[in-house]
Amino acid sequence: MKIAVLGTGMVGRAHAIRLVELGNDVTIGTKNVAKTLSVTNPDQMGNPPFSLWHKDHSQIKLMTFADAVKDADLVFEALHGSAVLNVLKPLESFLTGKILIDISNGMPPTLFVANTDSLGEQIQRALPKTKVIKTFNTVNAIIQVNPQLLANGDHDIFLSGNDAGAKADVNKLLQSYGWKNIIDLGDITTARGTEMMMPFWLRIFSSLKTPMFNYKIVMK
Amino acid sequence: MKIAVLGTGMVGRAHAIRLVELGNDVTIGTKNVAKTLSVTNPDQMGNPPFSLWHKDHSQIKLMTFADAVKDADLVFEALHGSAVLNVLKPLESFLTGKILIDISNGMPPTLFVANTDSLGEQIQRALPKTKVIKTFNTVNAIIQVNPQLLANGDHDIFLSGNDAGAKADVNKLLQSYGWKNIIDLGDITTARGTEMMMPFWLRIFSSLKTPMFNYKIVMK
Repeated sequence: MKIAVLGTGMVGRAHAIRLVELGNDVTIGTKNVAKTLSVTNPDQMGNPPFSLWHKDHSQIKLMTFADAVKDADLVFEALHGSAVLNVLKPLESFLTGKILIDISNGMPPTLFVANTDSLGEQIQRALPKTKVIKTFNTVNAIIQVNPQLLANGDHDIFLSGNDAGAKADVNKLLQSYGWKNIIDLGDITTARGTEMMMPFWLRIFSSLKTPMFNYKIVMK
Repeated sequence: MKIAVLGTGMVGRAHAIRLVELGNDVTIGTKNVAKTLSVTNPDQMGNPPFSLWHKDHSQIKLMTFADAVKDADLVFEALHGSAVLNVLKPLESFLTGKILIDISNGMPPTLFVANTDSLGEQIQRALPKTKVIKTFNTVNAIIQVNPQLLANGDHDIFLSGNDAGAKADVNKLLQSYGWKNIIDLGDITTARGTEMMMPFWLRIFSSLKTPMFNYKIVMK
């Protein structure tokens, strides 16, 4: 499958690698290719610059957002929450009819949308003909793409979206990543629930001193 | 121990029963005793009126908020989120130096305080000389008081509060209820994390069709 990953940060990179491993043809989209490649310093989090990472993953082509999305069958969006709508809206025609997997959260430690709205819903309203699926946003990038690293994969991931067919496709993709426990929360408004987990995630992270954890829903 | 439980709803009742089982001297506080006892219809959730419940639990005295709190060693607050501050502020002098366990959440499905503040913090600011501990608010009342009902108690409860001694006391109380996995999230500002779980809890409830679930943090 031809898959475009929008975003050159650690989340985008992790998915790009995993999707290639799984046999997909993957491109990464960015605003300005030359500018992205010109960065030579680590980012604020200490992650290596994209150009350095790209040397080891040169089969993944870096393109503008539009070029990456144009020919893609499926699009991942792993952008900063504050940039998402500005990036996606101009791509509307290229995204029509396609599945867009939205991984973005608000800007830690504070969400700029919560309670009565969510980023997932904002994206779905901005792109009414795109099948927006919110998932992955409750766990760190390493576990997102390799759930088996934790407790043999016996922990949960959540899905929100309006289109049942798109959710079935994303469910299969999650399974190909190794996800065993996939909970469909309902339509895209349920993204409010998972987006509002981020402040909790940060406090657990701070208490446990590791980002390598996830939630398991224990039922009677 | 003399314990006052503020609130006559299902959460207050569940804790009152459990605290009596554990050998405590328990009173329930309400705004207007005569009015609370005069209700003869079930509430909006279909719960029996307090007077009917009280017939089976007459050893638990019903008092005004002030009378209940005055002589208590420890106070539980299980009020509607919107009523909490109005009820507690006039009780300030009676609550000085005491532990107040705050179980309240915003009004489902929407929180009226989130992100940059929390009910727990609002209460702590309103009662600076009270040791406010936020806990229990991530799970339903039945599991709050009997965690063993679910997966032999192998799931998690969270604590937020500024006073280390008070947290140690509440930790013991949680253990006496049967809680085995107690995660200290830090100071009272971490209540933002657990209060913002409520919108997620509601979506899981809706997806699983049962309120009998809880979270377990799975770590590497």
